[in-house]
Amino acid sequence: MGEYRAMTKVSYNQIAGGSLERLAALSDGLFAIAMTLLVLDLKLPGAAGIHSERELAQGLLLLGPRLLMFAMGFLTLGIFWTGQQTQLRHFARGDRNLGWIHLAFLFAASVMPFSTMLLAEFLAYRLALLVYWVNILALGATLYFSWRYAVRAGLLKDDVSHATSCAIERRILIAQALYALGALFCVWNTLASIGFIFALQLYYAIAPRLRFGAGSDRKSEV
Amino acid sequence: MGEYRAMTKVSYNQIAGGSLERLAALSDGLFAIAMTLLVLDLKLPGAAGIHSERELAQGLLLLGPRLLMFAMGFLTLGIFWTGQQTQLRHFARGDRNLGWIHLAFLFAASVMPFSTMLLAEFLAYRLALLVYWVNILALGATLYFSWRYAVRAGLLKDDVSHATSCAIERRILIAQALYALGALFCVWNTLASIGFIFALQLYYAIAPRLRFGAGSDRKSEV
Amino acid sequence: MGEYRAMTKVSYNQIAGGSLERLAALSDGLFAIAMTLLVLDLKLPGAAGIHSERELAQGLLLLGPRLLMFAMGFLTLGIFWTGQQTQLRHFARGDRNLGWIHLAFLFAASVMPFSTMLLAEFLAYRLALLVYWVNILALGATLYFSWRYAVRAGLLKDDVSHATSCAIERRILIAQALYALGALFCVWNTLASIGFIFALQLYYAIAPRLRFGAGSDRKSEV
Amino acid sequence: MGEYRAMTKVSYNQIAGGSLERLAALSDGLFAIAMTLLVLDLKLPGAAGIHSERELAQGLLLLGPRLLMFAMGFLTLGIFWTGQQTQLRHFARGDRNLGWIHLAFLFAASVMPFSTMLLAEFLAYRLALLVYWVNILALGATLYFSWRYAVRAGLLKDDVSHATSCAIERRILIAQALYALGALFCVWNTLASIGFIFALQLYYAIAPRLRFGAGSDRKSEV
Repeated sequence: MGEYRAMTKVSYNQIAGGSLERLAALSDGLFAIAMTLLVLDLKLPGAAGIHSERELAQGLLLLGPRLLMFAMGFLTLGIFWTGQQTQLRHFARGDRNLGWIHLAFLFAASVMPFSTMLLAEFLAYRLALLVYWVNILALGATLYFSWRYAVRAGLLKDDVSHATSCAIERRILIAQALYALGALFCVWNTLASIGFIFALQLYYAIAPRLRFGAGSDRKSEV
Repeated sequence: MGEYRAMTKVSYNQIAGGSLERLAALSDGLFAIAMTLLVLDLKLPGAAGIHSERELAQGLLLLGPRLLMFAMGFLTLGIFWTGQQTQLRHFARGDRNLGWIHLAFLFAASVMPFSTMLLAEFLAYRLALLVYWVNILALGATLYFSWRYAVRAGLLKDDVSHATSCAIERRILIAQALYALGALFCVWNTLASIGFIFALQLYYAIAPRLRFGAGSDRKSEV
Repeated sequence: MGEYRAMTKVSYNQIAGGSLERLAALSDGLFAIAMTLLVLDLKLPGAAGIHSERELAQGLLLLGPRLLMFAMGFLTLGIFWTGQQTQLRHFARGDRNLGWIHLAFLFAASVMPFSTMLLAEFLAYRLALLVYWVNILALGATLYFSWRYAVRAGLLKDDVSHATSCAIERRILIAQALYALGALFCVWNTLASIGFIFALQLYYAIAPRLRFGAGSDRKSEV
Repeated sequence: MGEYRAMTKVSYNQIAGGSLERLAALSDGLFAIAMTLLVLDLKLPGAAGIHSERELAQGLLLLGPRLLMFAMGFLTLGIFWTGQQTQLRHFARGDRNLGWIHLAFLFAASVMPFSTMLLAEFLAYRLALLVYWVNILALGATLYFSWRYAVRAGLLKDDVSHATSCAIERRILIAQALYALGALFCVWNTLASIGFIFALQLYYAIAPRLRFGAGSDRKSEV
């Protein structure tokens, strides 16, 4: 193969991949599916045995923790979808390697429904929580690696400042440190871990809205 | 974390999110899946016991109400997809907060297949109808909140008139009032509720075509 | 509600819907799912009882007709996806009514996996074939209605000639007439119906490639 | 039908199909689903019988080979998604025939979850491996045919050099030759086949990153 390649100037790896639009489209599709697959797990247990409003209410109450886990999985996927979107917006173009880093990221995202269902089914088991955390770690690690590669390979837009670049890396590192801290809580109690991680994610999704007014956001959006 | 941030000018929340195109793509994917997941519920009951055309006809007849509920879920999702699309068309740009409001909207949309299946299975139960209505309410509330936030944060296009803005808010409020009225009917009879809501949705989807000619539509499309 | 509207100049129905890009994205997502859902039905019957290459071969052979039906469903969806794409390419813009016509079209497309699985399971039943045919009829009818509406409402691009318009309408009518003829064959034998419809679809997908050279296509693509 | 057509200048086949954007969108959606469907197969065997961390660990270990097969299927789909994307980027426009070649390609992609699950369930069976290989062959063959057709029909962009065209064809042929070699190994041992194909795919996804620096990639991306 090496000799064959030497005869021409162009190798396949130099021309493959590279379209950010299609990467974004594949990602949007995959996230949309991963987010929705979770609802397939929402089945009323023992539906055949329900014969009154009261029994239906009890069935729905039993579904409560599962719905909460579903919301937590949706939140996790939403956070990483936003994170990837933020990166792609700052890339001027992609290349083949970046494509494969993001395919690895998407692989981790596609496993998330499995991790979430596992955690929902084994709420009190440390191992289920560790699987969930490893999944979050894989999402964060591939996203961090994606940014580092893009910086090194010169794929960023010209107007991306060093401060922006640092903010993106810092955000991933701090969030992953806090997730790891949350996962550590499981030595004590898995529900404490889940609570901490869920609160952390809600903070990332909601808190900024309370702290920054629309005005300051608008400025930075330019 | 606060101290860390103070050292730089750029925080992650100021640069995250914001692409309307990707939000639209994620939404289209998620709605496409939610609409199609409903068909997975269309299983012929007791298929193994069917040995004649007559038995197949009976099986399909039993599937009738379920198909109708499926059509109703599709209609609901179609209405809110149209509603979101209308809003996004009037936004000049997005920001991180708007992204999270729409992720909440999409969460409500992804729960819709579950609510629909629940209602299809427990047609005569008030609780199933209430779950369905709460789901519609969540869709309407997030969409209303999205528009209010966009107005306040200055995300609208310059050519969006005050009248347009009012029309969009009014539409959501009136529709939600009517849905709530329909849900109230379940005190009397759940089938009356379902019938009223279905008729209301058909009205929203079909009726305007009868009232406005193509000409008046064309004008307003400019 | 009527009085309320009279107070302002803008009604929601005049500003809702209208983005062809988002309609195309929703359609692509929904067709992609409907096409892929069919494969979920491909389960090896009695997988637990397979203990030799020979038994696996027998299991796969039993799956043969199902795979063929799957291919037929894929072909059907491919034909109507191409048909919708052809129409959208000739539209200058959409409006709310067109959006709802296409949502009806998408509803028919989302039922296709159900019709296909029904036919695969009840190959010899006329009723299963009629359900399949009604589904194809619904796809054709909504597509035909979409084009007629677009012509009447002036949504076509300026460069769409009358001949093009006629070709599109004619194609749908001829194809539907042939499908109806194929469905009629089931009075005699359902397998003859299925064979005729499958051959017809293969003709629509493959035959033109044999008849028109690349050169004539290129010309018409301008 | 022939006479009918003769009366007008425009036939449906001359105006149908042709939008590369919609083909890309359908492909992205379908690949996203095929990639994610695989995770549906990840079910903890005997979840009801798990009552300790140790039993959960054993259950997850049993899931190991399945997760590896899932990764392999994801990798396969990622490689062919990248391959299709590379081709589409070099096309100036599409036509109806190209659309159908890619629908055949997508059909092969949609069967991949089935082939992967079959191989995961019957790891030691040559027939399961042959089905997997035929699926890869179908993906490669349709992609090769797509490029040959595009060259012949003049659909390429003007700036696509002969060297680029040769590199794309060569890549498919070499890869398929190696896949066939790997499949041949199953005469000896199916696990050797799977190992060889997996290693080959990892090489295609990862190796180039080690060999070409970011600099040389950047150059060729212009």
